[in-house]
Amino acid sequence: MQRDALVAALSQRLGERGLLREPDDMTRYVADWAGDRLGMPLAVARPASTEEVIATVRLCRDHGVPMVPQGGHSGLVAGALPAADGGELVISLERMNRIRAIDPISFTMAVDAGCILESVKQAAAEHECEFPLALGAQGSCQIGGNIATNAGGLNVLRYGMMRQLVLGLEVVLPDGRLWDGMTALHKDNRGYALKQLFLGSEGTLGIVTGAVLKLTPRATQTRTALLGLDSLEAVIELYGLARCDCSDLLSAFELIPRRCIELAMEATSTLSDPMDHSYPWYVLLEVSASGPLDLGAMLEHLLEQGMERGLVLDGALAASEVQSRQLWQFRESMLEGQRRRGEHLRTDISVPISAIPAFVEEASRSVMEASPECEIIAYGHVGDGNLHFNVLPPPAMPEAEKRAHLHALEERLFEVLDGFVGSISAEHGIGRTKQSAYLARLSPVERELAEGIKALFDPDGLMNPGRILPPRG
Amino acid sequence: MQRDALVAALSQRLGERGLLREPDDMTRYVADWAGDRLGMPLAVARPASTEEVIATVRLCRDHGVPMVPQGGHSGLVAGALPAADGGELVISLERMNRIRAIDPISFTMAVDAGCILESVKQAAAEHECEFPLALGAQGSCQIGGNIATNAGGLNVLRYGMMRQLVLGLEVVLPDGRLWDGMTALHKDNRGYALKQLFLGSEGTLGIVTGAVLKLTPRATQTRTALLGLDSLEAVIELYGLARCDCSDLLSAFELIPRRCIELAMEATSTLSDPMDHSYPWYVLLEVSASGPLDLGAMLEHLLEQGMERGLVLDGALAASEVQSRQLWQFRESMLEGQRRRGEHLRTDISVPISAIPAFVEEASRSVMEASPECEIIAYGHVGDGNLHFNVLPPPAMPEAEKRAHLHALEERLFEVLDGFVGSISAEHGIGRTKQSAYLARLSPVERELAEGIKALFDPDGLMNPGRILPPRG
Repeated sequence: MQRDALVAALSQRLGERGLLREPDDMTRYVADWAGDRLGMPLAVARPASTEEVIATVRLCRDHGVPMVPQGGHSGLVAGALPAADGGELVISLERMNRIRAIDPISFTMAVDAGCILESVKQAAAEHECEFPLALGAQGSCQIGGNIATNAGGLNVLRYGMMRQLVLGLEVVLPDGRLWDGMTALHKDNRGYALKQLFLGSEGTLGIVTGAVLKLTPRATQTRTALLGLDSLEAVIELYGLARCDCSDLLSAFELIPRRCIELAMEATSTLSDPMDHSYPWYVLLEVSASGPLDLGAMLEHLLEQGMERGLVLDGALAASEVQSRQLWQFRESMLEGQRRRGEHLRTDISVPISAIPAFVEEASRSVMEASPECEIIAYGHVGDGNLHFNVLPPPAMPEAEKRAHLHALEERLFEVLDGFVGSISAEHGIGRTKQSAYLARLSPVERELAEGIKALFDPDGLMNPGRILPPRG
Repeated sequence: MQRDALVAALSQRLGERGLLREPDDMTRYVADWAGDRLGMPLAVARPASTEEVIATVRLCRDHGVPMVPQGGHSGLVAGALPAADGGELVISLERMNRIRAIDPISFTMAVDAGCILESVKQAAAEHECEFPLALGAQGSCQIGGNIATNAGGLNVLRYGMMRQLVLGLEVVLPDGRLWDGMTALHKDNRGYALKQLFLGSEGTLGIVTGAVLKLTPRATQTRTALLGLDSLEAVIELYGLARCDCSDLLSAFELIPRRCIELAMEATSTLSDPMDHSYPWYVLLEVSASGPLDLGAMLEHLLEQGMERGLVLDGALAASEVQSRQLWQFRESMLEGQRRRGEHLRTDISVPISAIPAFVEEASRSVMEASPECEIIAYGHVGDGNLHFNVLPPPAMPEAEKRAHLHALEERLFEVLDGFVGSISAEHGIGRTKQSAYLARLSPVERELAEGIKALFDPDGLMNPGRILPPRG
């Protein structure tokens, strides 16, 4: 039997620490952050080097066994979970967690793909640099996963997504050959952008084993404000004002609806209402800089302008790092507050920034029409046009009915989104969860090209099959 | 005869203005900025709409005639010049020069591919926005060409290359089908990054007909300084200091050797030596912002630091826009000064930033060893690790010997570059000119993937064949 032969060969090649086969040992590799879980893998390979990844991939290819590359399990579209059939080998990069080199003069850093984002950020900070990717999951997610999903997060507005933060890449292809693009060059226009193709391909074209990351100077000063506004139109106008007034120093501009402030206070008892009055919308805004600029004056100027124009109705300014953390706690606790509500519709859509107010209005109307008792929570990254338009099902709804109900609401939402030429996945990717909605909107020509690329890189269809595209027939 | 049939069909479809057949009319489509010229085309098609591009491409495919998409003729690697055999159809996008839409709230702009960069910048400025790509050729180059070559230029340090400035793309594929990716989304993680693949593919995978560009707030203040330094080590150290001290507001950091200051003064008689003494190296530095920040104080702080540390020996600060333009004139006139020296070796290489001093030293030694009478001029974009390491041949060398001599020097230079894991083409691309050096360094696995991508998008091999990769056998 091919599967048994593969396990035996892997066991020999990777050793005891390198291969897990007992269900108890494999439990933490079968579920992700969102709580999704499909099935158990054949085994979990834990290669400790690029050479061991190569050996693992070759053995899988020789035995015809599909592979699932895995990072820190913080994906939200079930893209890195082993399939229900139990026939896939999970390849976890967790043991490849070495910082290979830091060059603070070139503002670059070479790392293994299994490095946890937080440790990459710490290593950069030790050299007065910053790796600006900032995600809720940064304490557990891995660089390889960030690359595979082209991760976004809180600072995209200023620093771009992972795609803009990766200079070099090292990838083990589905046939076990190494694609070595580990250059530390800020500019390189040689031939087709293969690196870009691997970025965001969700582990379906190869396994990222290493990367050269682009760093920035470490921010030495930060100012945070939480502002109250009364309409989405005002939020958008304030965003434009903030972009201009703060030059390129605006690092976050997060939209938070009143309901999320309440959910945050429910989830974290030490949080109290941030202002004397409540407002329908809040903006959590941050500016940061590495030099001697007077950020405080800059932010005050912005807020004065915002108040003069009637956009900002009230605000809480953090006067210290502790206070800044408190303001950010609203953003973090509101996620916990949502999670406590049990199963709900999570989306991750994008529209043109200027269309945010009209989209939220139309989408809300459509969803409420179909489900008057549900609760809508729309928050997100205004500067990216990226909203998490989430829906809590009616509290009285029986558990058994929720999934189908939420799915129907999602379809309504996506139909409205199509009218705005938006994206059903701004940052989470497609994986398995978003596949049907993705395929339903894919033009024949794009599907043909995407399938052609998959076939070119992975002719045997063994590398994370069935994610993004359905498995070949 | 297929060629005659194609010309007749195109003439009917595109009309008189849409097809040029007379050699006199075609002259300006056969040479580029660098003065390269290969041969005359079969004809020059000038479609006025995406539909006409589609019709043109279909006819070429039906008649088996190769196509050369063409922008503003400012390429430097002969990538958009018709081949010597006279059998290619040039497809010029110059009549597709419409600004389709500007959305200053979303900081986006949709344009036809034939728009000239300068007019795009002007249109953005009219809406208090900026399209930050800045090139010497911006008065003639077209957005489609900027996309096809992933153009860089002077502000890459701050705003990235074209790849980072394009949100949406519309491409006519080699079989005449339209790939419609004209979304105005700042974030979109749906499937494989086809858009990225078209960017920088030099017209070999399809013809870009439209794009959605990413804008930034218009800079309302700018400060420029020309500084004198005595070593490349000092230049690199100053660069690190400037990045930190100026946060993300550093928009240019250009390295200029003394010889270029002299060339500039030779070329432009109104320019006089910018400082009392001469220095081996100069840095032309610019900071800009859109808000009320005190840029002057920021720059002064940087220069004080630079002088205290002994990095900056002298400097000229522009006190007005006129003075700033004067400083930039050194950068522009030095190119004219070089051009006047006749045929010379132009390169466009990149290395890790921290390796610049060692690379320049080693490369200079190697080149001078082979050609003691030549003159080296190395200037470029320090923050991108991107140098134009150019060589003027010995003045006494007979014209007939120059080309072979310079080619031999280029080979020496590239060998040194290989030791630094650098790129032979940081921004100009491969085209035809850099093809042999590119192929000589291409790994078998990368070549196989690149050829596979070309075959997937262009199975008949009719779209700009022979550029980047050799034509299929």
